[in-house]
Amino acid sequence: MKPLTILKIGGSIITHKDSKKPKIHETNLKRISKEIASIHDRDYQLIIVHGAGSYGHPIVKKTGIDKGIQNEEQRVAFAETQRLQNELNLFVTKYLIKEGLPAIPCQISSFVVLDSGRINEFDTSAIEGLLEINMIPVLYGVPAYDRNQGCSILSGDQIVSYLALKLRANRIIHGTDVDGIFTENPKLSSSARLIHEISSKNLEEVMKKISGSTNTDVTGGMFGKLSELLEVGIESQIINALVPGNITKALRGENIGTMIRF
Amino acid sequence: MKPLTILKIGGSIITHKDSKKPKIHETNLKRISKEIASIHDRDYQLIIVHGAGSYGHPIVKKTGIDKGIQNEEQRVAFAETQRLQNELNLFVTKYLIKEGLPAIPCQISSFVVLDSGRINEFDTSAIEGLLEINMIPVLYGVPAYDRNQGCSILSGDQIVSYLALKLRANRIIHGTDVDGIFTENPKLSSSARLIHEISSKNLEEVMKKISGSTNTDVTGGMFGKLSELLEVGIESQIINALVPGNITKALRGENIGTMIRF
Repeated sequence: MKPLTILKIGGSIITHKDSKKPKIHETNLKRISKEIASIHDRDYQLIIVHGAGSYGHPIVKKTGIDKGIQNEEQRVAFAETQRLQNELNLFVTKYLIKEGLPAIPCQISSFVVLDSGRINEFDTSAIEGLLEINMIPVLYGVPAYDRNQGCSILSGDQIVSYLALKLRANRIIHGTDVDGIFTENPKLSSSARLIHEISSKNLEEVMKKISGSTNTDVTGGMFGKLSELLEVGIESQIINALVPGNITKALRGENIGTMIRF
Repeated sequence: MKPLTILKIGGSIITHKDSKKPKIHETNLKRISKEIASIHDRDYQLIIVHGAGSYGHPIVKKTGIDKGIQNEEQRVAFAETQRLQNELNLFVTKYLIKEGLPAIPCQISSFVVLDSGRINEFDTSAIEGLLEINMIPVLYGVPAYDRNQGCSILSGDQIVSYLALKLRANRIIHGTDVDGIFTENPKLSSSARLIHEISSKNLEEVMKKISGSTNTDVTGGMFGKLSELLEVGIESQIINALVPGNITKALRGENIGTMIRF
């Protein structure tokens, strides 16, 4: 069986994240699709997971459906939020397919059940089958049925961690809007330095430093991302997907960004 | 628990079926959404399943993915066919949501596994959960992973039958482009008469008559539909969804079209 790579692309890359209305970032989407297609003669299986950006955060914040469903208005908002995620995925897969990639949309809230925001059931048979026939499943963060509160948000990051563990992925690549994990928040401090590698040697020190990070969003910031990756225990790489060429480099195995090794 | 109704809306209603390019039928979509919303204060659970029409048949016929996946071109066609089904569903749910209905998209090929075209695994936990919190899951025909040939087509009709049995639906309503089941093909013969009711009394006679029907498509025509409904053994109704008001009437329990009773 070919080794499996899971590539996460953040919502801040594929959408204009700060737009109040859902807005895709066409230039980035086109470039990223070309980058992935440029090494399509690949000797590994690939799953792509993308975030929501301006297709998710504004409507969720406005309607509060991440905290559960209380009334008909929230039920309609739940439906509309899901619809918007499918719309975003339609654009993502459109550009990937245009580059000749067998990138197949996979909405997972049609079957995944959550328990207070965490995945309770997730049957991966079809996704494994699609990988076997060399398709590229494209998953994405979604609002999903929650046993305890009706609805909560299943983030792209949680999907990545769950799939990586269950399907024994070999590598995780996180395409974000920063160069990797820094000693301080690079958006706030000029003395912030990029940490090139995190391993058992410097882990404790790093966690202490970044736990005060203010760079958070409704699905968790860098601290959350790192904690999630550490729990998974699979070689991971955090890269800046805004820099042209970085996704290709990471897929080729080059050491850019922050490497997390075990 | 509230009784469950499954409403199937044929691809020939919501799309311009004979268009070579995917084309939605906006007028019908708007009208049908209003009809469903007009009795939204409903005392039953509702699942909607829709067909593909011009979003499905032309690309499937052209690429042959319903007979399996042999090469990269077909893999890309598999992905694009799925993408098109999600696009159609985006329109269907858009109009339903516009009428205030909590109509949530449910792509099921992300988890359903087929075995030579028939459903092998189908975890309905999330769909049952969505029904419990009064959402309206909107499913649709899709190309899906097939254990034996890589891909085959999971028709809306098969989804309806499977769900009806598994979730013990009380009623199935089939919205088609004809008034119901006729003694002969009404599109070819002027002496064709509508059969108002099919039950154990006239079943054998009816099956003999319509088994010669030429009104077929890649997902089976009326003969296939009736056979599938008979296997399920749940009260079903075949109506003409092109006639304004018929969907409302059927949802209200009026005897129009062909009733199939057990």
